[in-house]
Amino acid sequence: MTDYRRLRVALLGAGAVGSQVAALLRKHGDELADRAGAALDLVGIAVRNPDATRDVELPRELFTTDADELITGADIVIELMGGIEPARSNILLALSSGADVVTANKALLATHGPEIFDAADQVGASVYYEAAAAGAIPIIRPLRDSLAGDRVQRIMGIVNGTTNYILDRMDREGSDFADVLADAQALGYAEADPTADVEGFDAAQKAAILASLAFHTAVPLDAVHREGITQIDTQMMDAARKAGYVIKLLAVCERLSGTDASPSGEAISVRVYPALIPREHPLASVHGANNAVFVQAEAAGNLMFYGAGAGGVQTASAVLGDVVSAARRHIAGGVGVGESTRANLPVLPVGRVTTRYQITLEVSDTPGVLATVAGILSDGRVSIATVEQTVLTQGPSTSSGTTGQPGLARIIIGTHRALEQDLSETVERLAASGVVTRVVSVLRVEGD
Amino acid sequence: MTDYRRLRVALLGAGAVGSQVAALLRKHGDELADRAGAALDLVGIAVRNPDATRDVELPRELFTTDADELITGADIVIELMGGIEPARSNILLALSSGADVVTANKALLATHGPEIFDAADQVGASVYYEAAAAGAIPIIRPLRDSLAGDRVQRIMGIVNGTTNYILDRMDREGSDFADVLADAQALGYAEADPTADVEGFDAAQKAAILASLAFHTAVPLDAVHREGITQIDTQMMDAARKAGYVIKLLAVCERLSGTDASPSGEAISVRVYPALIPREHPLASVHGANNAVFVQAEAAGNLMFYGAGAGGVQTASAVLGDVVSAARRHIAGGVGVGESTRANLPVLPVGRVTTRYQITLEVSDTPGVLATVAGILSDGRVSIATVEQTVLTQGPSTSSGTTGQPGLARIIIGTHRALEQDLSETVERLAASGVVTRVVSVLRVEGD
Repeated sequence: MTDYRRLRVALLGAGAVGSQVAALLRKHGDELADRAGAALDLVGIAVRNPDATRDVELPRELFTTDADELITGADIVIELMGGIEPARSNILLALSSGADVVTANKALLATHGPEIFDAADQVGASVYYEAAAAGAIPIIRPLRDSLAGDRVQRIMGIVNGTTNYILDRMDREGSDFADVLADAQALGYAEADPTADVEGFDAAQKAAILASLAFHTAVPLDAVHREGITQIDTQMMDAARKAGYVIKLLAVCERLSGTDASPSGEAISVRVYPALIPREHPLASVHGANNAVFVQAEAAGNLMFYGAGAGGVQTASAVLGDVVSAARRHIAGGVGVGESTRANLPVLPVGRVTTRYQITLEVSDTPGVLATVAGILSDGRVSIATVEQTVLTQGPSTSSGTTGQPGLARIIIGTHRALEQDLSETVERLAASGVVTRVVSVLRVEGD
Repeated sequence: MTDYRRLRVALLGAGAVGSQVAALLRKHGDELADRAGAALDLVGIAVRNPDATRDVELPRELFTTDADELITGADIVIELMGGIEPARSNILLALSSGADVVTANKALLATHGPEIFDAADQVGASVYYEAAAAGAIPIIRPLRDSLAGDRVQRIMGIVNGTTNYILDRMDREGSDFADVLADAQALGYAEADPTADVEGFDAAQKAAILASLAFHTAVPLDAVHREGITQIDTQMMDAARKAGYVIKLLAVCERLSGTDASPSGEAISVRVYPALIPREHPLASVHGANNAVFVQAEAAGNLMFYGAGAGGVQTASAVLGDVVSAARRHIAGGVGVGESTRANLPVLPVGRVTTRYQITLEVSDTPGVLATVAGILSDGRVSIATVEQTVLTQGPSTSSGTTGQPGLARIIIGTHRALEQDLSETVERLAASGVVTRVVSVLRVEGD
C-alpha cells in the first residue's frame, strides 16, 4: 500500500449522519486514501455524552467531550452537530487553527454564512457544505463550479423530503394533511415537532444557500419569503389534479431584470411556498421523500438534479465527498477558493415578484357576480387567463319555486402573470366585495 | 471595478461550441472575473481558416493559424477542435508550457486520457473536461468530487442525444428507424454520416470517461462493449410498449463483485447497447435529444442528473465553468489534483455480465415446441421468468380441413438474471433447433 501523508480528521457530533460518516471513514479508509492521495485518520469524535447509544458501533476511545482540544489538532474538521452554537464557535476555531471545515449545517450557513466564509478567506482555508442543501444530491459543486461560467436564471427546488412525502401522499391517496402527517411521524419521515419542515423553515435555509451560490450574492435568511403547507387541504389537491397540476412545496430562487433596485436593473427573489406545477414538469414526478433541484441557466438550459434529500447514510455520502475534496486540497497546496458573492444583487420582497396564480372563490350565485369579480381583478391589474364557474348549491326552494335567495357557486380563476402585490391587494378587495362569500385558496403557478 | 490579476486564455477551435465560448467570454467578462477572482483575457483563437464564417461574430484580429505560439503564451488553453490530432499534441504542449487545459474532447480522453492526465501530473497542472460527457449536464464534478467518498455501484446513462431523439420518436409515433433518422438529419439532430451516434461510438467514449471516474480506474475505450440502435424496429418498439418497457440506448457502467478477476473479487463492466427499461424508471421519461445519467451509489442511493446533452451554447456553459475553475486554481496556487485511478479494477468482457433478457422467437406452431424451447433454455442455464405464446398464422387449410402443415407462433420469454455468455450460446442453440424459425430479437432488460 502506498505510504500516504496522514491527515487528522476530527468529527463533531455522532448523530444519524455523524455515526455513518465515522463508520464509512473506518470501513473504506484504504480506498478513500487512494482517492484523496492522503490517509484520513479519524482522530476523535466530540460529543456531549460519549456513552450514548449510537446508530453504528464505534470504538469508545474515539469519543471525547473536549471539542476544542480535538479541533486544534486537526487538519480537517467535520461539523455535524447542527444548530448555531457551539457549532459556529467550533467552526471558527477550526478555521483559525488552519483546518479545512466540512459541514452539513444549513441553519448555521443560512444565518452566519458570510462570517464563516470570511473567516476561511482570512486564513486561506476552505469550507465544504455539499450536505447542507438537498442531502445526498450533488448540487453545491454544480452551482459553485460547473455553472460558474453561466448565468442562472431560476432554481425551483423540492428541497424538503418531509413535506414532499406528505404532499405526495395527499395527492396520490386523497388523504388529509393531518392524517398523513401523523403517519409520517410514526414512520420517522417527520419529527415529533414538525414545524421546521411543514412551515418551510428548513426549505428556506436551503433556498438561502442555493440562491447565494447561484447568484453570487450573500442572501440573508430573513430575505427569504416563507410559507408552509399546513393550509393545503384535500379540496385544493383535488382541484389541482383536475386542472392538470400537482401541489409541491417549492424553493424558488429567481433572477429579476428590469427593476430599479440596482444600477444593472437586476435583482433576485428567494421564496418558499406551496405552488401548482404542471403534471408534465420534471419536478411533478418527484415522489416520496425525494428531493430535486431544477435549474434554468442562460447557456446550459434546463438541468435537473434528483436524489435522496435526507437520511443518515445518504447525507454521509455528501460529507465524505467533501472530506476527500478537503484532503486533496491539503495535498495540492494553495489557498482555499472563497465564496463568490461579488454580484451582491438586492433581494426583493415577494410583493415585487410576478407569477401566475390560481384563485378559487366561493360566491353567491346571483346575476352579474362574475362581472363584479372580473371588474375587481381588472381594476387591480390582474389579467384573467382562464375562468371556470360551477354551481355548488341551489338557493332554498318552496313548493311554488325558488325563494329567490341565492345559492352558492365556485369560481376558479387562472391569471396571467401578475405582480404579487397587486394580486394580494386584489384578493383583499375580492374578500370584502360582498359577492365573494369565501376566498377558498390562492396558489401560485410555477414551472409553466 | 476590482483590479484583478489577468489570465491569458487561448481558444483552439471556433466551431459550434468554440464560437459560443468566445462570445460568452467576451459578453460576460466582468461577471466571470468577479467569480473567478481573475480577469479572463481571450488572447487568441487558433483555427485552420481565420476567414471562415462563424456562428457568432468575433473580431478578425483574434484569429490565428499559429496554435503553438498562442498556446505557449497562455495560462488556460481551451481545446475545442475535436479529433485526436492535432488536439493531443496541442494539449500536451499546453500542459508542458504550464497552462491548465479545458477540453470537451471525448474521443481524445477516451483513447489518450492516461497520457494526458500523466502529463498534467508531471507539471502539477489540471485538465478539466465537464463538457466531454453529457454536454451541459454537470456530471464530471459530481462523480469526481461529490461522490469521491462513496462507492458507485452502477451508472446507467442516456448520453447520446441523437439516438435518444430517434428512439423517442419511434416510441411515440410508431415510426420507422430510417424515416426518423432522415428527419433527424434534416432537422440537424443527426449528422449526414450518423455512424458515430447510431452505432454507439459516441456513447462508448462517454461511457469510458464516466466509468474511469466512477470506479477510479483507467478504462480503455476498447474495453467498452458497444452495440448501436440500427436493428431496432417498430415491432420491437411495439412489443416493448405492450410489456411496459421503453427501448433506450444505455451506457451501463457497473461494479461487479465476487469475481475471480482481481484479488478483491471486484471488477467492472462498461457497455453500450439498446435495452428495455421499465416505463416508471426515471430514465424512461427522458425525451427528445436530452441526456440523463442515473447513478446508484452505496451510501447516496439513487441519483439522477438531467439536461441538454449537446448543442453549442449548452456545451459552452460546461466549458466556461471549467475555465472559471481553472482560473480559481491559478489564483489559489497549489498543484492540480490528478485523476484518481488507483483502484485499477479489471474491465470484464460483456460475456461475464449478468442481466435479464427478453427473447422474442418465431416458432412453428407444433405440439411440444414450447417444451423444446424451455428445455434448451434450461440446459443453457437460462431461467425463464415470464413466457407468452401467441399464434401468428394458421397452417394452410384445404376444404377437408387443415393440411397438417404447421402455422407460426411467437414466443416472448422474459428471463431471470443470466450470464451473457450462457444467454448468447443458448440463443445460438435456439436458432439452430429446427423449431425456431426466426430469432426476432434479444434485448437486455435494465433498471428493474
